[in-house]
Amino acid sequence: MKVQVCIIGGGPSGLLLSQLLHLKGIDAVVLEKYSRDHVLARIRAGVLEHGFAELMREAQCRERMDREGEIHTGFEIAHDGVLSKIDLHKHSGGSSVLVYGQTELTRDLYEARDRLGGKVVHNAQDVTPHDLTSDRPYVTYRANGETVRVDCDYIVGADGFHGVSRKSIPRDVLREYEKVYPFGWLGVLSRTKPVSPELIYVKHERGFALCSLRSQVLSRYYIQVPLTDKVEDWSDDAFWAELKRRLPGEVAGKLITGPSIEKSIAPLRSFVAEPMSYGRLFLAGDAAHIVPPTGARGLNSAASDIYYLYHALLAHYQSGDDSGLAGYSAKALARIWKAQRFSWWMTMLLHRFPDRLEYEDRLQQTELDYLLSSETAQRLLAENYVGLPF
Amino acid sequence: MKVQVCIIGGGPSGLLLSQLLHLKGIDAVVLEKYSRDHVLARIRAGVLEHGFAELMREAQCRERMDREGEIHTGFEIAHDGVLSKIDLHKHSGGSSVLVYGQTELTRDLYEARDRLGGKVVHNAQDVTPHDLTSDRPYVTYRANGETVRVDCDYIVGADGFHGVSRKSIPRDVLREYEKVYPFGWLGVLSRTKPVSPELIYVKHERGFALCSLRSQVLSRYYIQVPLTDKVEDWSDDAFWAELKRRLPGEVAGKLITGPSIEKSIAPLRSFVAEPMSYGRLFLAGDAAHIVPPTGARGLNSAASDIYYLYHALLAHYQSGDDSGLAGYSAKALARIWKAQRFSWWMTMLLHRFPDRLEYEDRLQQTELDYLLSSETAQRLLAENYVGLPF
Repeated sequence: MKVQVCIIGGGPSGLLLSQLLHLKGIDAVVLEKYSRDHVLARIRAGVLEHGFAELMREAQCRERMDREGEIHTGFEIAHDGVLSKIDLHKHSGGSSVLVYGQTELTRDLYEARDRLGGKVVHNAQDVTPHDLTSDRPYVTYRANGETVRVDCDYIVGADGFHGVSRKSIPRDVLREYEKVYPFGWLGVLSRTKPVSPELIYVKHERGFALCSLRSQVLSRYYIQVPLTDKVEDWSDDAFWAELKRRLPGEVAGKLITGPSIEKSIAPLRSFVAEPMSYGRLFLAGDAAHIVPPTGARGLNSAASDIYYLYHALLAHYQSGDDSGLAGYSAKALARIWKAQRFSWWMTMLLHRFPDRLEYEDRLQQTELDYLLSSETAQRLLAENYVGLPF
Repeated sequence: MKVQVCIIGGGPSGLLLSQLLHLKGIDAVVLEKYSRDHVLARIRAGVLEHGFAELMREAQCRERMDREGEIHTGFEIAHDGVLSKIDLHKHSGGSSVLVYGQTELTRDLYEARDRLGGKVVHNAQDVTPHDLTSDRPYVTYRANGETVRVDCDYIVGADGFHGVSRKSIPRDVLREYEKVYPFGWLGVLSRTKPVSPELIYVKHERGFALCSLRSQVLSRYYIQVPLTDKVEDWSDDAFWAELKRRLPGEVAGKLITGPSIEKSIAPLRSFVAEPMSYGRLFLAGDAAHIVPPTGARGLNSAASDIYYLYHALLAHYQSGDDSGLAGYSAKALARIWKAQRFSWWMTMLLHRFPDRLEYEDRLQQTELDYLLSSETAQRLLAENYVGLPF
């Protein structure tokens, strides 16, 4: 097979990029290790920046997103039994975020790829990039017992944290930066009406909690748990009881509980790999960086990479300008680190940290008091939450 | 002796409060452990918030301060060999700070006290507060071998971190919060023209540095040093050489060096004691809280306490309203913690931290990159640096 761009990974990043390139006449293939059903079974993020939504619209995937997605102009912070509103719309000068599940968005992208007849290969085994520093790189994979070779101009590694792409960059070139937090999020998805139309971030002495949602009939709740906890330790009843304990009374009283249709524990980690390109390979999304979910930067960070990469590839194929590709890593990383900073800040603001100085606990409380007392501090939060400019 | 308010400590806080009270006809005495010359030999802060300067004016100490003090509408941050301007005036909506040495300010306050015939007792030994929870508290001290008793309505503890006032609050009432930083500031005062008319805060891989000044002929420079360093380890030549290494070339080239007229190492510490009142005793300034010098909040935090305490005492004596005194600790602490937060933030932003995750070093660099790229972030810095509203 011969294409212009070979994209490793059929998650939202890879699909979005292939769709955008296809619409500009650039030939790309997506190689996905798992089945489509497997990819679509992933329960992930659900808060989209304005810039991401714009990119989906440019990819001709606006219809269902704009119909079913919910515009959120703010969220609430619960602390000491009180709810405080953060008005994103007001403090960002009119911006907002769109709540639309990653699962739905991925489904839309698959359907868009189907409509255009895009090349998406599922169950591609042993995907391996080759000759990255030559000007004729290629990728091999196995399917039905046979090895397939894909010749291409460029390879995009959008295959997540555990994917092969980042591992293809020599150890002496790649630098990895990591911070692990001493807790995880226990998440429950339930077919219940959300307790609030907006997200509620909860700071509580028993630990962080989050009331989130995927739609008006699908709720997503999280509670901070120690890393030593296992999902089996948490019955649905125990989860709902602990969540209620952390919510202000007025919210807990309205909480509608129900059986979990998904329940899992995710550890919290910050991770960045540099550089994000090596020869003809370009990394995007989780393949290069991970954030804790606080502040909803994960999927949005991937979208930011895709934005830069899409425009860089366009400049190359449309006008022979390679400066975008040469500068991709530096440009993407500058924004990625700012998203890392914001995720770290919001994580530090809201979680309970065991074994910390009492002084630092008071500083954390002060950070929140100051945020709620200063319009400038709320503006700073808002400009990050709705997404810094590309 | 019998007075309405007995103030322990003859530093700027105690003198300012006694002067303000005197002007309103409230009788106060200041008890100072050391001599006037000793107090005036202290080299300390030099950046005054607008609110502090206003309080000095209300205390009829405006003349020399307004003539010799320098209005600073901004400062610079040096990083990676580059200077970036922080425009305080623009980003705070027209505010600024006044650079005027604590020594000068204390001298002005002493002269004002002299003019009004204020009661200031120097060399007061073994100062001890008594019967704090009764409605007739008193203070004793020794002078010339005799014990003197001062009966009063209220006692103000403005006697610094090592003073007797905070120690008079029972251990089961007082809570102390502390964070110690793994470095100190080596400071040099020299009779040389400052290298820049504005302050320059320097982030450098060898460590933090600060170019400050007391006047156009008196420079104050600092460099971050390990806590294990001793002043004797640092000749003047070694200090200047290390300072130059940390400055951008264009600044280092203009640096005028000279013999140090003062040289000392100060460890960096954050500390808050709660509550700030106990019975009829009210703590103010360093007696209750300490900040690292980064961001110049120390003296200004003391002024904020004096502002609240002055108005609370005024309300009591002028209209029998005790709510200000009852609420003093909570009100003062709310602002103090915000100043602590800002000092901590600016300390974390600019210093080199040994034994830290590389991820955290990159986060620190990102914090600075973001600050310099976001007008909102510069506004947030400015509103804290010029002083939050009382």
